[in-house]
Formats: sequence, C-alpha cells, structure tokens
Amino acid sequence: MPRFQLIIAAIEFAATLAFAVSGLIEAARRRMDVVGIFAVAFITAFGGGTVRDVLLDRRPFFWVEHPGYVWLVFGLAVVAAPWLHRRRERFTERAMMLPDALGLGLFSVTGVSLASAADMPAVVSVMMGVITGVFGGVMRDVICNEVPYVFHDHRPYALCAFAGAWVYLAMEAVQLPPLLSLAVSVALIAGLRLAAVLTGWTVPRWQRDES
Amino acid sequence: MPRFQLIIAAIEFAATLAFAVSGLIEAARRRMDVVGIFAVAFITAFGGGTVRDVLLDRRPFFWVEHPGYVWLVFGLAVVAAPWLHRRRERFTERAMMLPDALGLGLFSVTGVSLASAADMPAVVSVMMGVITGVFGGVMRDVICNEVPYVFHDHRPYALCAFAGAWVYLAMEAVQLPPLLSLAVSVALIAGLRLAAVLTGWTVPRWQRDES
Amino acid sequence: MPRFQLIIAAIEFAATLAFAVSGLIEAARRRMDVVGIFAVAFITAFGGGTVRDVLLDRRPFFWVEHPGYVWLVFGLAVVAAPWLHRRRERFTERAMMLPDALGLGLFSVTGVSLASAADMPAVVSVMMGVITGVFGGVMRDVICNEVPYVFHDHRPYALCAFAGAWVYLAMEAVQLPPLLSLAVSVALIAGLRLAAVLTGWTVPRWQRDES
Repeated sequence: MPRFQLIIAAIEFAATLAFAVSGLIEAARRRMDVVGIFAVAFITAFGGGTVRDVLLDRRPFFWVEHPGYVWLVFGLAVVAAPWLHRRRERFTERAMMLPDALGLGLFSVTGVSLASAADMPAVVSVMMGVITGVFGGVMRDVICNEVPYVFHDHRPYALCAFAGAWVYLAMEAVQLPPLLSLAVSVALIAGLRLAAVLTGWTVPRWQRDES
Repeated sequence: MPRFQLIIAAIEFAATLAFAVSGLIEAARRRMDVVGIFAVAFITAFGGGTVRDVLLDRRPFFWVEHPGYVWLVFGLAVVAAPWLHRRRERFTERAMMLPDALGLGLFSVTGVSLASAADMPAVVSVMMGVITGVFGGVMRDVICNEVPYVFHDHRPYALCAFAGAWVYLAMEAVQLPPLLSLAVSVALIAGLRLAAVLTGWTVPRWQRDES
Repeated sequence: MPRFQLIIAAIEFAATLAFAVSGLIEAARRRMDVVGIFAVAFITAFGGGTVRDVLLDRRPFFWVEHPGYVWLVFGLAVVAAPWLHRRRERFTERAMMLPDALGLGLFSVTGVSLASAADMPAVVSVMMGVITGVFGGVMRDVICNEVPYVFHDHRPYALCAFAGAWVYLAMEAVQLPPLLSLAVSVALIAGLRLAAVLTGWTVPRWQRDES
C-alpha cells in the first residue's frame, strides 16, 4: 500500500505537469508574457479541482495544501517556457499524451469519489468527476479567447471521464476495495482516451454539418 | 396552497427547460459536440442560481437537490439537439419566449427573496436577484466566445428583473403575504419582458453611436 | 491612527472608482448598454476581491458590507458613462493612472494580509494578493471578449503586486507594525507601477517573437 500511494503521487505529479504544460503551450502560442503563461498554466492545472472544491464547499484546495506545486508552475513559466519554444511544440504534445490521459483519469476519479463521499446523488458525483478532469482546460480556452476545445472537437475526452466515473460508482456500490476501484477506473479512462486518440475515433456530428 | 406550489413547480420546470434550450441552440449554432451542447445547456439553465448560491454561500445547489433536472438536460442534449436542428430555430425561439420571460421572473424573484432572507442589504438582494435571472445567459455567451447579449443588445431584460426585484422587496417591506408578493413580481417581470419584446422597446443608446 | 484609517478609506474610495471607471470605459468602447456598463464596471471594481473571498471562503464580501459602493457604481453607469464619452477617453485614462496604481497596491496588500491571517502558505498568500489586485481586470477582459491585457501586454502590473506582496510578508515576518508594513508595500507597488508606466519598461519577450 505505501507503494500504491507512491504510484498515485507519481501519477498526480506527472498529470499536473502535463496539464500545466498544456496551459503553457497555449499561452505561449498567444504570445502572452510571463504573467499570462504562469496564470494560464496554473489555471489549467488546478482550475478543475478548484471549481469542484468551490462547488462541494471543500477547503483547503489541493494547491493550498501542496504549495510546492505552485512553485513548480512558477518554475515552469520562468524556466521552461522559453525552452519549450525552441523545441517543437508538436513533440511536446505527443510526449504529454500519456500523462494527460492518466491525469484525466486520476483527476476525474478523485472528483467522483470526493463527491460521492459528500453524499452527492450519483449523477451529480459523475458531473463533479468530469468537471474535475476537464474544467481546467475549459478555463484555459476561455481565457485564451477560444471556444473550449473539449466542447467542439468531437473527440472523446469528457466522455471517457464520464464513462469511467460511472464504472467507479458501480464498483463502489458493490463494495469493491476502494484502491481497486480507483485503479480500474483510472486505467479505463486513460485507456479509452488513448484508444480514441490513436484510432482517431470521433463522436457523431449533427446532420446540419453535412449540408 | 398545494395548487400554488404546483404552479410554481410547473413554471420552474418550463423555465429551466426554456433556459436549457436557449443554451442548446447557441451551442448547436457553434457546432459543438454532444459534450459542449450538454455543458452549455446545463450552464445556461443552472449557472445563475449556482453563482448566486456560491455568493450567498448556500448549499446544496438546486441541481444537487433535484438531480432529475440533470438527467433532463442530458436527455435534451442527446435526444432533442439533433431534432431541434431539423426544425426552424426561429420557431423554437418564439415558442421559448413565454417560458423564458416567466423563468426570468421566477428565478430573479427567488434570488432576491433568498438574499433578503439572508439579511443582505436591499441593493445587494436586488443584484442577487438579477444575477440569478441573467447570469446563466452571461456564462453561456462567454463560453460561446461572444460578448454577453444581455450587456449590449439594448433590449430590457436585466432591467425588467431589476424593476421587479425592487417591487418584491417593497411588498415584503409592507409585509404582504409572501406568495402574493412572489406572484405579483414574477408576473410583473414576465409582463415587462414580453411587452418589451413585442413592442420592440429599447433602452437609449449613447451619444457616441450617433456620430 | 484615525487619520491613517481616513487615508486608507480615501485610497480605497479612489481606487474603487478608478477600477470601476476602467470597466466603464472598456464597456462603453464595446458599445454596451447601461446594463453591460454597470456589470463590467462592477466586476472590474469588485471581481478581484470577490474571487479572493470565494477562494478563502470569507463572507461577507466588501460590497455586501458597504452597499454604498454598489450605488456608486450604479450612479457612474447611469450618470457618468454618457458624460465620459464626450470627454477624451485618453484624458480619463491618464487621470486614472495614479488611483489605479494605488488601488493595485492597496487591494493586493489587503489580499495578501487577509490570506496570511488565514494561515495560508506564503506563496499562496502572495497569489491571493495578486489575484485581489488584478482579477477584476481579468474578468473585465474575458467578458469583453479579449485576452486579458494583464496576461500579454508585457508591461509590469501583476509583477509589481507580486514583488510588493513578498515585501509585505517579509515585513510581517520580522514583526514590523502592520500599518507600517501596509504603508510601505502599498507605496512600493504603486511606485513600481508608476515607474514602469512612465519609463515604458517592459518584461522580456520570448525568442519566438524575434523571428
């Protein structure tokens, strides 16, 4: 079990990094200055969990309990941003694919389990899970003045979190050990997401788009 | 009184539906996928009340207490969105005019009465009422990457809620029965709004626009 | 000390006015109606403090405790907005430079001291300070459908607040009298900001911009 905790902590670290870097890249594309790059990276990494905690009225926030993560994003914004520019962004995005998928899984499952522990109805818990996983990216896109990708790219992202959140609740309902439920549903979300990206699977478009 | 409760519940249902459909239409215009359509419809329907509850520090949210509404918006996004496309949107918007006006009235008056019950100063209670009525639409427009309509279309919407909220507070101050105050101010807001739409009344423009 | 309180109250008043007017001007540029002008002015003036209070779970908000300020912004939106139009906006912006810089200082230092009193870690307190100072402007720009200026104009604004917030924490740590720490760090932030504007100092751009 300490080993398990270590794995969780490692996934958390890698996922936070992946989310922060996705904010970093987007902010840099928009030619933001160091303040904007830090702010967008921070909001992308912690926005989902913070919105969830405000909705569930939980304190302290993750980043208040672990201020080391704030320093990490500071460091990224000051040190890594110029460095990232010289490398190919596409390369970075590819390298981020796995930690991003794991982060989506981990953050979503954390969200659903916290909401469920706070006695939220099942469908609300699932929404809290999905919000935790995707709202950082939504806020990133709103600040960068774009319609959120996750709402219109027709590639399953929130849907993977949605499916995995229900699986987690089902496993919790039949009283499987929490760690097992966690591991299975995180793996399921990450696996679905990776499969969707690698196979280019998209959700159906509306008829209107055909005309 | 049970009959009155039933009427309130029916207005609430119709108004939530009207707000959700307005989000649905806007998201579909932006060619969002099913995730975006659900998210925008949900935020339009429940965003105003949720922002109010966060500001007043009230829990649980309306949609946490009534998860059936979450399912309703899910259903709309999956089933009704493609169907809406085939019909004329303009027709839908017309059909939504009455429930939307009633919703503006009901949500605003609920907001002002909750804030007033929480001992907010009068002007703050009025603002909470207006926020409850209009902020769902504001968030819908921000996410759809537009300047909020309610801030620049020069057609009275927030102003109707504003006027009705003061009337509600005045009736409360002279200790009229709450249900009467509620009914009168909801009817007033909805009536003002419908009158404004039907007569094409607009608020004055700034001089700058003339030059 | 009563004289000191008076000075604080005067700075607070001038700064709130300056922030509200910056919202007013931006909303008027976007040709918003009276509702939009009020809403954007209000959010610019009180948005930063309100976000901070939601994050710190503090109530009541500043504008709930001092509803006179809500009336002030109402008055500005109705009376001053048309009047401002006839004058040169550039003149107004210049006149606002000093109160805006003082407001940045005062609001940021208030934020950091409140967060520090709530036992937040140092780096989190500093962030709360910066958020209090700049988030009103960020929300103003998001609503006006622009990428927030403070994130990409390469002119130090948040950075001045950031530096001053650390100075405040340092002075608090060596147990200097709170009023002295407050005065020095507000003056420092305002001074840095004015110096930056007057000398045209900008933060370094990324290499990418050179190509």
